[in-house]
Amino acid sequence: MRINGIYYQSITPTEDGIKVLDQRYLPWRIEFVELNTAENAKQAIREMWVRGAPLIGSVGAFGLAFALRNDSSDEGLEVACQSLAEARPTAINLRWAIEKVRAAVQNLPPQKRAQTAMECAWQIAQEDARLNYQIGQHGLELLCKLTPPDRPLQILTHCNAGWIATMDYGTALSPIYQAHDAGMPLHVWVDETRPRNQGSLLTAFELAQHGVPHTVITDNAGGLLMQRGQVDVCIVGADRVTRNGDVCNKIGTYLKALAAFDNAVPFYVAFPYSTYDPSLECGSEIPIEQRSGDEITWLSGPTPQGQWATVQTTPSSVQNPAFDITPARLVSGYLTELGLMNAQQLRERYAGKA
Amino acid sequence: MRINGIYYQSITPTEDGIKVLDQRYLPWRIEFVELNTAENAKQAIREMWVRGAPLIGSVGAFGLAFALRNDSSDEGLEVACQSLAEARPTAINLRWAIEKVRAAVQNLPPQKRAQTAMECAWQIAQEDARLNYQIGQHGLELLCKLTPPDRPLQILTHCNAGWIATMDYGTALSPIYQAHDAGMPLHVWVDETRPRNQGSLLTAFELAQHGVPHTVITDNAGGLLMQRGQVDVCIVGADRVTRNGDVCNKIGTYLKALAAFDNAVPFYVAFPYSTYDPSLECGSEIPIEQRSGDEITWLSGPTPQGQWATVQTTPSSVQNPAFDITPARLVSGYLTELGLMNAQQLRERYAGKA
Repeated sequence: MRINGIYYQSITPTEDGIKVLDQRYLPWRIEFVELNTAENAKQAIREMWVRGAPLIGSVGAFGLAFALRNDSSDEGLEVACQSLAEARPTAINLRWAIEKVRAAVQNLPPQKRAQTAMECAWQIAQEDARLNYQIGQHGLELLCKLTPPDRPLQILTHCNAGWIATMDYGTALSPIYQAHDAGMPLHVWVDETRPRNQGSLLTAFELAQHGVPHTVITDNAGGLLMQRGQVDVCIVGADRVTRNGDVCNKIGTYLKALAAFDNAVPFYVAFPYSTYDPSLECGSEIPIEQRSGDEITWLSGPTPQGQWATVQTTPSSVQNPAFDITPARLVSGYLTELGLMNAQQLRERYAGKA
Repeated sequence: MRINGIYYQSITPTEDGIKVLDQRYLPWRIEFVELNTAENAKQAIREMWVRGAPLIGSVGAFGLAFALRNDSSDEGLEVACQSLAEARPTAINLRWAIEKVRAAVQNLPPQKRAQTAMECAWQIAQEDARLNYQIGQHGLELLCKLTPPDRPLQILTHCNAGWIATMDYGTALSPIYQAHDAGMPLHVWVDETRPRNQGSLLTAFELAQHGVPHTVITDNAGGLLMQRGQVDVCIVGADRVTRNGDVCNKIGTYLKALAAFDNAVPFYVAFPYSTYDPSLECGSEIPIEQRSGDEITWLSGPTPQGQWATVQTTPSSVQNPAFDITPARLVSGYLTELGLMNAQQLRERYAGKA
């Protein structure tokens, strides 16, 4: 996808490792950072220099490859897998990618592991881009059917499930980009997504760079817009989807799904197979990451004078759970690389993943 | 209620007018401002130096009294009523209070109008304090019944419906203060309430000043807490309640009501009779105020160095509707000065208001 007209993917090779967009400074500053050790890959994931379930999967895979360059013993492999998986507990893609690399290397002689792990990490990243493109193709079909004859399609999304949350294209935003590119008139309502404002900072940035009409709203506003008929469809990403179709995604997703259901607005969840976790029956089994209260109580941005400042939003004590669970009964459909599915189809098609 | 241990009501008399707390700077600075003309009363309402449906009713009444000191003619009365009512379109209390003052003075000779209007405004303010105390008494009974035997009662509230939103005690917070004072163990989850953060700034401030245990959460988080059984009851205020029991309140209230309903958490709305609007059948008829996008895109607060700064939250274009509608079907009960009622009782008991 594009930044200032230049085509990027979220991970590019460097001599010694990989280069990623440092998402902490978007949209104010476009900065890239090189990752070349397991430690800085882990830090990048934990401190959200990179984020988005599919992208942290890919970066985790590279982190494991970097670790194996230093210590490719069985014990080194085990320690690195454990350590990287801890960086973010909720999204399944991270664990999935680490396990995929582990499976690829564990029966190899140690001296071959680092190289193979690196190749496997690239495969994971490139496959992610390909799957997301397919999600977008299936989503494009869906959006075509939903578009009213006389006005632009109104789409609401929460958090950021765009190209910077993945290797390329995004999950929830992939259909939107492909529909826009196909000339379909559409407009996106972008939830601010407190506390980290991934919507107003990242999704809005992506959509602006791609020329897609959009408007940022507070997380509180989507319900009213749906009550007033101003939303035709909701599309969100996912951090983990359980066997029964429950969706773990950024905190607040559940509230939008409730409002969509209450107003008969279709609610779709877009993700590749690596997000599906058949090892858990339902959403209540997913560990919900509690993040630092500082994410709520401090906010940084440019001042009117163009300087950078950080201000306190409240002196109070806070709690900051990062994800919630949208029950399968509120989901109109699952948009995957295999097409649009219901919960039963999801279970059947992805049974082999267990 | 108390600030730093000193007892205040939200409006106190000055030689020439009234003194109110300037809510724009809370909790960082406690500043009072004197209002003594229709113009500065209107500005205080429009720019939210004062806010909260009951309080802007009282301040509007004083504004009308100030206007009549300058021009007490029939035309002056008419112009002042119109102008003040426009300051905030959604809350019914403002219109109600203005009409109450108008009715008290319109048949008087012009030279008597200003004095009578001033007395009427004081009556409105003092009645508000009294009604809110009664709301709290009835609410205390309700909270007693809901309190589990083995742990503190967990209450969630949205926005600020506390004493600073009224003449005294508050509406939604009045039961909480009275329960706390009665020694009942409780804890309040305070929704941040974007975009103006009335929860994390004002409600948290009030609760802290009164010693009530509380935790601020993002507006996105309440759904998860309810899913996990961490909320026993929701209580919110209202800006207008229609004949059928639909509730217009701060944007985002509807999403919490949906989550409460979905998780069998009782959802109560607390307000005095002046908030009931029998002239409208249902919530979709209420004009929803659209406020400046700057409320979303800029945020002010202290820096870590203790200076005051304003930062931009997003460079994107935004929309900022200030209220939404919670349908009567999602409301467990209406907590008023007359006690806990259902929608039918509300209609019957307040029929005389039409």
